[in-house]
Amino acid sequence: MLKVGLLGAGRIATVHAKAITAHRKSTLVAVSDMIAENAKQLAANFGCEVRTTDEIIDDPTIDAVLIATSTDTHSDLIERATAAGKAVLCEKPVDLSLERARACQAAVAQSGRPVMIGFNRRFDPNFSAVKAALAGGEIGKAELLSITSFDPSPPPVSYIKVSGGLFRDMMIHDFDMANFIMGETPVSISAVGSSIVDPEIGIAGDVDTAVVTMTYADGKIAVIKNSRRAVYGYDQRLELLGSEGLLQAQNMLENTMVKSTVAGVTGAKPTYFFLERYMPAYEAEWIAFVEAVETKSTFPVTLEDGVTALAMAEAANRSLELGRAVLLEEVAPVLA
Amino acid sequence: MLKVGLLGAGRIATVHAKAITAHRKSTLVAVSDMIAENAKQLAANFGCEVRTTDEIIDDPTIDAVLIATSTDTHSDLIERATAAGKAVLCEKPVDLSLERARACQAAVAQSGRPVMIGFNRRFDPNFSAVKAALAGGEIGKAELLSITSFDPSPPPVSYIKVSGGLFRDMMIHDFDMANFIMGETPVSISAVGSSIVDPEIGIAGDVDTAVVTMTYADGKIAVIKNSRRAVYGYDQRLELLGSEGLLQAQNMLENTMVKSTVAGVTGAKPTYFFLERYMPAYEAEWIAFVEAVETKSTFPVTLEDGVTALAMAEAANRSLELGRAVLLEEVAPVLA
Amino acid sequence: MLKVGLLGAGRIATVHAKAITAHRKSTLVAVSDMIAENAKQLAANFGCEVRTTDEIIDDPTIDAVLIATSTDTHSDLIERATAAGKAVLCEKPVDLSLERARACQAAVAQSGRPVMIGFNRRFDPNFSAVKAALAGGEIGKAELLSITSFDPSPPPVSYIKVSGGLFRDMMIHDFDMANFIMGETPVSISAVGSSIVDPEIGIAGDVDTAVVTMTYADGKIAVIKNSRRAVYGYDQRLELLGSEGLLQAQNMLENTMVKSTVAGVTGAKPTYFFLERYMPAYEAEWIAFVEAVETKSTFPVTLEDGVTALAMAEAANRSLELGRAVLLEEVAPVLA
Amino acid sequence: MLKVGLLGAGRIATVHAKAITAHRKSTLVAVSDMIAENAKQLAANFGCEVRTTDEIIDDPTIDAVLIATSTDTHSDLIERATAAGKAVLCEKPVDLSLERARACQAAVAQSGRPVMIGFNRRFDPNFSAVKAALAGGEIGKAELLSITSFDPSPPPVSYIKVSGGLFRDMMIHDFDMANFIMGETPVSISAVGSSIVDPEIGIAGDVDTAVVTMTYADGKIAVIKNSRRAVYGYDQRLELLGSEGLLQAQNMLENTMVKSTVAGVTGAKPTYFFLERYMPAYEAEWIAFVEAVETKSTFPVTLEDGVTALAMAEAANRSLELGRAVLLEEVAPVLA
Repeated sequence: MLKVGLLGAGRIATVHAKAITAHRKSTLVAVSDMIAENAKQLAANFGCEVRTTDEIIDDPTIDAVLIATSTDTHSDLIERATAAGKAVLCEKPVDLSLERARACQAAVAQSGRPVMIGFNRRFDPNFSAVKAALAGGEIGKAELLSITSFDPSPPPVSYIKVSGGLFRDMMIHDFDMANFIMGETPVSISAVGSSIVDPEIGIAGDVDTAVVTMTYADGKIAVIKNSRRAVYGYDQRLELLGSEGLLQAQNMLENTMVKSTVAGVTGAKPTYFFLERYMPAYEAEWIAFVEAVETKSTFPVTLEDGVTALAMAEAANRSLELGRAVLLEEVAPVLA
Repeated sequence: MLKVGLLGAGRIATVHAKAITAHRKSTLVAVSDMIAENAKQLAANFGCEVRTTDEIIDDPTIDAVLIATSTDTHSDLIERATAAGKAVLCEKPVDLSLERARACQAAVAQSGRPVMIGFNRRFDPNFSAVKAALAGGEIGKAELLSITSFDPSPPPVSYIKVSGGLFRDMMIHDFDMANFIMGETPVSISAVGSSIVDPEIGIAGDVDTAVVTMTYADGKIAVIKNSRRAVYGYDQRLELLGSEGLLQAQNMLENTMVKSTVAGVTGAKPTYFFLERYMPAYEAEWIAFVEAVETKSTFPVTLEDGVTALAMAEAANRSLELGRAVLLEEVAPVLA
Repeated sequence: MLKVGLLGAGRIATVHAKAITAHRKSTLVAVSDMIAENAKQLAANFGCEVRTTDEIIDDPTIDAVLIATSTDTHSDLIERATAAGKAVLCEKPVDLSLERARACQAAVAQSGRPVMIGFNRRFDPNFSAVKAALAGGEIGKAELLSITSFDPSPPPVSYIKVSGGLFRDMMIHDFDMANFIMGETPVSISAVGSSIVDPEIGIAGDVDTAVVTMTYADGKIAVIKNSRRAVYGYDQRLELLGSEGLLQAQNMLENTMVKSTVAGVTGAKPTYFFLERYMPAYEAEWIAFVEAVETKSTFPVTLEDGVTALAMAEAANRSLELGRAVLLEEVAPVLA
Repeated sequence: MLKVGLLGAGRIATVHAKAITAHRKSTLVAVSDMIAENAKQLAANFGCEVRTTDEIIDDPTIDAVLIATSTDTHSDLIERATAAGKAVLCEKPVDLSLERARACQAAVAQSGRPVMIGFNRRFDPNFSAVKAALAGGEIGKAELLSITSFDPSPPPVSYIKVSGGLFRDMMIHDFDMANFIMGETPVSISAVGSSIVDPEIGIAGDVDTAVVTMTYADGKIAVIKNSRRAVYGYDQRLELLGSEGLLQAQNMLENTMVKSTVAGVTGAKPTYFFLERYMPAYEAEWIAFVEAVETKSTFPVTLEDGVTALAMAEAANRSLELGRAVLLEEVAPVLA
């Protein structure tokens, strides 16, 4: 039985608490949060103790730590938890600073403890079906990948200001998805973006609509489209053209009802947001984490994956600024 | 906290055990089964005691009993559990004998305790969306209902022999679904059937493929199609034509991936069988049961619903035998 | 070049005139109609002469006659045109009277001239793809066929009164479709029906909503659903369950646009009515007629097919009246 | 009756000959082609004369000229036909040289005769439904447009060498589609591309897979994806995210049959290539041309539209070469 400490008690921490307590082989021992009330409520709902972060990290009977705190604390907590010998699952992104993330990576390497980064979408049954079909040779070799990733509505501008920007906060999932599907990192990254959804987002220095194009060493191309607003719901699709066919992962819908009237033929909308769409993915992510810890095998998403996605976000930022393609090695010379 | 005793430890009992233990407001106290090993294993998996059926029914601290034993025991157990003051959720069908089921209904009426019958499909989000859309006037008045309900593969002939026949064992769900959607019972029932899937099923005195047509007092019509074999998976659809449109509940698919190759455009199959398709419905069913017990309100599916569906199966059997339409009141005069 | 005379100049005659003039190997020589103005206008639009029906039938230079007049004239005109040595394509139904149709069949047999009946739906690319896939063994053996056939809106009650009733006027297409797909005629036919769309239709002695169930010698089953009103458009679908899969022919839509908004995900409606849906089928029908005449091969739809479908309509009428299954041989002893 | 001369007798000329002869208000008088045999055969099929190009242009009784010759002759023929007072419909692209095309534009302006460019896709019912829905305010303001345009298989390398390259030969349709949907030209264009489908195409100096991203003055973004090979057929889709929803134009399929077996649920492929997909669009294009000539109104696609699309292709070429975004005004200063 894997004994787990949960750092953070907010919305995403609650998602993880569900997955931890639902798993036969893991138990939630304790939770910590800066806001005492949050920790207390999560503890009550899931039947665990409230402790401080230090108490959790220092408890030798706790095997694993799940980090679901604010992004600016991730690197520190990863370093402290691995130094204390814990297996770690940390929410994305590793950090807003690529430099800090890479320092963290170095520290973790010294600890010898593995860290898994919470790119939950890799565990979505639809995207993983695409990955499996490609791996099975069902469409020959990959040539052109398109990822569509739209949120239902933009977050408050106050959040935008501390988010690190669309590329690090939102598209980072799609950078990782491209890496997951393509099985390699791109050579070059070009970004365009604007704040057409909400000019206030532009005033805050960010974009709300963006397209990033990436090229690979052998000529493959990937394109990622992001918007902070799709009023019909969470739009999460991808399609991959290969030498022998096309694979598409389409949206999951709220239900399968179709209504035909004089006004047209209407079906349900996509599931509303990430909690609805990706709850099964969060559960599968936790199952994969527990299994990897148990069998001492490599995590399916590594700290290096987290740092790579961050470097791609950095390159996209620079491309947007410079109006030209940016090589990934310009941003992260050691990686390339 | 609702304290629950589970009678039966087979496949469907396991489904219910999941729903009971996942609910914040209910706890699984004990399980009984004729096969000791089954009870032991379920108890181990869900952390409850193994007891005898008598011990469960006689325990005054147990509030509710879920009956998931073989059909021939349902009526007895319903009577005993309600006499002992329990709230009861019993799997369908109530009984294979309409006479016995109606005697049970009378006994329960005297106990004053409510009984809910496990027509789980009423809680499927797709079918309930159709019900809600009809109730909301989205297609005007109902006129013509079609239910398609195919199993992936036929059960062993040994099971067929004790099943009570396709109408009582399989189509009973669809009879209840027609009642749920239409909001009333039919006047007349006509059945055709054959054993084209497996002649052994015919030799055993049953059909494996059947179509039942039902007419209603105001001219509405319903048609139900059943087959014991759809090699592509569990096919569970319905469509309802109304004066102002059509509502369709389509299958749920294993995933949303679509593959386009020279061979065509291929999507995933329907979820394989009832465990995959209806797990959310079983959970919603249990939530509705707990809520009704808690608020002392009427169950959303009653013992009368169970008896009515059984009477419709009886009428279908008689129609198949006689080659003519059979009035529901011929079979169940008091109901009509 | 096949020289063609067209009898009738109404809506369906215009459809045929388009197909005749579009074909490289046929030319429209003349048209006749009881209403002189109709004939005149069709002749002007398609560049042919106006003549009397007698003049057309008696003209030895005319090779083929297309009969698109009112149903009550079909048998007479078929007899006269075949007696005059013409190849004949006649609109469905052959006649409203089964007895008269069978007399016509006998007369035509003596003439030795072939007659094709205008069951255009056999030439629809979607239904013929189902037929081809079944013939190619793609779903094993046929077991259960469902045909859904709804008109967008009911005709005037004045038309209903002379139509011969829903089974002979509307469902006759579906009877022929069942024969086309199944490749054999049913043994037994059961019908239910009501006038729920428009009580005036009931007062006129007809039904507007009906379900017919048919059984075959080897246990196959077919079910046909008809409604005179589907407000969302012409609903023309079928599905066939076989031992190794399911084939479905779905509706054709006005366009492929899909709109996703807060109100849901909406696509186009089915093409509005038979002119839109079946224009390609009418063209393919004419191509098949010309080819069969040219190569002196059997017509793909024969007069016998027309008489059989009429007998099935007759059996459905009788079943509706008697409330029991009617054997096809009760209605048409020689056929069975 | 519009008297039409057709210049060219190849594959695309045949498409136009069908549309011209099918139209009640136009007649095909004569055809010319460098290859006498081609002209002779087209003339035989459609019942017109064979003449020289000069004879057609100089014939004062001919009202309109349709130019379907090789691209390098377009500018000359446009100039000569307009100088001779003809109404002109010319296939895309106007020219491979932007400079030459702009000189042609100047010459035509002096003639005062209107020229329509054959961007047939504007007349596709699916794309025009998107345009109409946007114009009708159904998704609010446009924000992010994606165009997917894949050919079924690459042309011979010999064709690639004289084609002007993917942007001028293939993506030019998509540049015009973006202009059609967005209703304005982009400010900036970024291209990536590779020859991953066939290295020989790369050796010939072209790309076979490309993504172009375009930004607009108000922050709108468009992205176009092209591939010379989609083995499953002609893939022609677009989607437009707006402030109040999403519009998608999906592929047209060969038929509506769906087959469900143990292998999955399979539907028909997209219609194979442009002749199948766009024949209705070519007919609608010709109808629009005839109507504009008849009513002396502006053509729905102008010579300026043709020149603008060519300038966008030029900008994409330059962006691909330079690895940076190129302003449209760098390429075509007068246009911007």
